[in-house]
Amino acid sequence: MSRSRLVVLAGPTAVGKGTVAEEIRRHHPEVWISVSATTRPPRPGEENGVHYWFVSDEEFDAMIERGDLLEWAVVHKTARYGTPRGPVELALASGHPAMLEIDLQGARQVRQNMPEALFVFLKPPSWDELVRRLVGRGTESEAERERRLETAREELAAEREFDVTIVNHEVHAAADELVALMRFGLDQPDDAPNPF
Amino acid sequence: MSRSRLVVLAGPTAVGKGTVAEEIRRHHPEVWISVSATTRPPRPGEENGVHYWFVSDEEFDAMIERGDLLEWAVVHKTARYGTPRGPVELALASGHPAMLEIDLQGARQVRQNMPEALFVFLKPPSWDELVRRLVGRGTESEAERERRLETAREELAAEREFDVTIVNHEVHAAADELVALMRFGLDQPDDAPNPF
Repeated sequence: MSRSRLVVLAGPTAVGKGTVAEEIRRHHPEVWISVSATTRPPRPGEENGVHYWFVSDEEFDAMIERGDLLEWAVVHKTARYGTPRGPVELALASGHPAMLEIDLQGARQVRQNMPEALFVFLKPPSWDELVRRLVGRGTESEAERERRLETAREELAAEREFDVTIVNHEVHAAADELVALMRFGLDQPDDAPNPF
Repeated sequence: MSRSRLVVLAGPTAVGKGTVAEEIRRHHPEVWISVSATTRPPRPGEENGVHYWFVSDEEFDAMIERGDLLEWAVVHKTARYGTPRGPVELALASGHPAMLEIDLQGARQVRQNMPEALFVFLKPPSWDELVRRLVGRGTESEAERERRLETAREELAAEREFDVTIVNHEVHAAADELVALMRFGLDQPDDAPNPF
């Protein structure tokens, strides 16, 4: 019942954070994963409280005012997304392995609010692989392509802000490494010798 | 996505609140039911985050200090139980039908913190039936028996503090009535004529 340490998984756009989180959700149900709140409407098949907490703009405003969000951001200029603080606090207080899957800006905000979390950077296996995932099927303009690559360069440089890096060679392996990291951190008694 | 109204189910000791909540959990999975935090250790088969959030005394203290509990109490002089505010706020903000199942003292505290909730009193079908459930198998002393009956009289008198009463003739019917109440309150648009 000792308090657990929050794991924050972040990384560049298109590195596969969501896929790794989905793999953990499926194969490691003992890990608690934060459900974000959003002001966008549900898509078909999305369930309130499972995929997102779907709230109105007014409710989102109220959450911000009460300090109920660990981080939040506007995405595509219209919808807001945020991480509710209460459920995270409960999961940690009860010693549950717990994680957020989040973008880089979100991770920086969480560090302001919860500096004791473990920040894990998910890294693409190579620059070429990231470019392939980012640029997609080559339908975008040259200017759009350049903008995406510039963003990717900036996002990769964020690695140095993180505590740990996991390279996403393959989703199953990356998920296992992340879960091992959580277990190790959680199971280690306070007086155990530091293995590093 | 409009905000829902919290339903607080309370009533005398041994009236069957937990059984009604369990019936709703099983047959109405669309209803969100609060999971309490407690400082007592888990019993065999109890799962963290499902039956309770199991937390240490230090974590419980921290929750109280941060204002993270809608209500809390000491039970049997040793363990503390409380209702985490964050998950309740999320469920309500996203328009989910949501309820607490709680004792009378807890309901009174929730009214202080969330007066807009709907307070539902679960009533035994008769005084004799409540006595039967309370006094059990007749193994207690006469003094203990008298103490329990006095408590029951006081608890029944609390009915007048509530918005609605449901008589627990039979668990299935009581659960259906409660869910109907939640649906009605939730689905009614703001500009619908008041049916009463």
